[in-house]
Amino acid sequence: MKIAVLGTGTAGRTIAGKLSELGHDVAVGTRDPRATLGRTEPDAMGNPPYAAWQAEHPAARLAPFAGAAASGDLIVNATGGDGSLDALTQAGEENLSGKVLLDISNPLDFSQGFPPSLFVKDTDSLAERIQRAFPAVRVVKSLNTMTAAVMVDPGRVGGGDHSVFVSGNDPDAKTTVVDLLTSMGHRDVIDLGDLSTARGAEMYLPIWLRLMAALGTPFFNIKVVR
Amino acid sequence: MKIAVLGTGTAGRTIAGKLSELGHDVAVGTRDPRATLGRTEPDAMGNPPYAAWQAEHPAARLAPFAGAAASGDLIVNATGGDGSLDALTQAGEENLSGKVLLDISNPLDFSQGFPPSLFVKDTDSLAERIQRAFPAVRVVKSLNTMTAAVMVDPGRVGGGDHSVFVSGNDPDAKTTVVDLLTSMGHRDVIDLGDLSTARGAEMYLPIWLRLMAALGTPFFNIKVVR
Repeated sequence: MKIAVLGTGTAGRTIAGKLSELGHDVAVGTRDPRATLGRTEPDAMGNPPYAAWQAEHPAARLAPFAGAAASGDLIVNATGGDGSLDALTQAGEENLSGKVLLDISNPLDFSQGFPPSLFVKDTDSLAERIQRAFPAVRVVKSLNTMTAAVMVDPGRVGGGDHSVFVSGNDPDAKTTVVDLLTSMGHRDVIDLGDLSTARGAEMYLPIWLRLMAALGTPFFNIKVVR
Repeated sequence: MKIAVLGTGTAGRTIAGKLSELGHDVAVGTRDPRATLGRTEPDAMGNPPYAAWQAEHPAARLAPFAGAAASGDLIVNATGGDGSLDALTQAGEENLSGKVLLDISNPLDFSQGFPPSLFVKDTDSLAERIQRAFPAVRVVKSLNTMTAAVMVDPGRVGGGDHSVFVSGNDPDAKTTVVDLLTSMGHRDVIDLGDLSTARGAEMYLPIWLRLMAALGTPFFNIKVVR
């Protein structure tokens, strides 16, 4: 499949690398490819500059948001939650309409430090904001409840015996995403329902962040035992 | 131990019944015992009237909030979240001070129907509100992330192989609660940290409610796989 991954941070790189490895034709979208490739210092999270990652993943081509989105049949929103609507606007409605948008972002507000608060919650969600801004896009929320390395390699934690959620209004779009999740090794995909259920998936983040602190590692996930 | 369980709904009855069964001296607190015992119809949730439950659990004595709290060395807040501060005020600061308060409530607002929203969240929690209102009480948040029947009988779901969280500022109070949880069969108790981590435990409710709808049952819990 032709897939555009928007975002060049840890989540974007991790997803793009895995999808390339699975044989997909991957374009990574960024605001300004020249600037992204020109950085030589590690980012605020200590990740090596994008150019170093790119050198190890030559198949994933870097492009402006619009060019990447135009080339993709499926779009992954792996931008930071506070930049998602802007990035998708740059990607362009005409390059998104009718396509499946797998939204893995979280509405984290780090302006007051750690732990972050949520800039949308409870009676709305970032996924729904994106859906309202781009009504012709088929938004599916998923994967936002675990760290990037576990998203693409569920077997890394507990032999993969844990759960992932999907929320969305379009059944066919959800099927496409479920197939993608399954191809990455997810065995327990739970369909929460329509896109309003993404509120719950996004509001799970505060306990995830506290669990990360309590456990001293981001390498965990939850299993829904029933 | 002498334990006061505040609240006569499903959660209060279930916890009170289990603690009685474990040999504790249990008082159940309510606003007006005569009114509680006088009801003859099932409540809004379809539960049989309290008097029917009382007849099957003669050891758990019903008392006004203040009388129950005065007799307890440990207090369980099993009232509805929107009535918790009022119930605790009726229980009386002098009957609560210095004691461990196990808070199992959730700040659910059903005023707009189902699913409920949260009337406190993100940068505050109901547990913290209670702690601020009663500074000398040793508040521990726990058990609010599962249905009452699973709180007291974890083995009912997946052989008990799932997790429960504790949040609180007083280490000794948390130890008391962890011992109580263990006595009820909980095997994986995760200490999230200070009471501000209750924000995460309370904000987990929206996905719990959506999971209940998606799975068609409240009999599930999450296991933190790591």
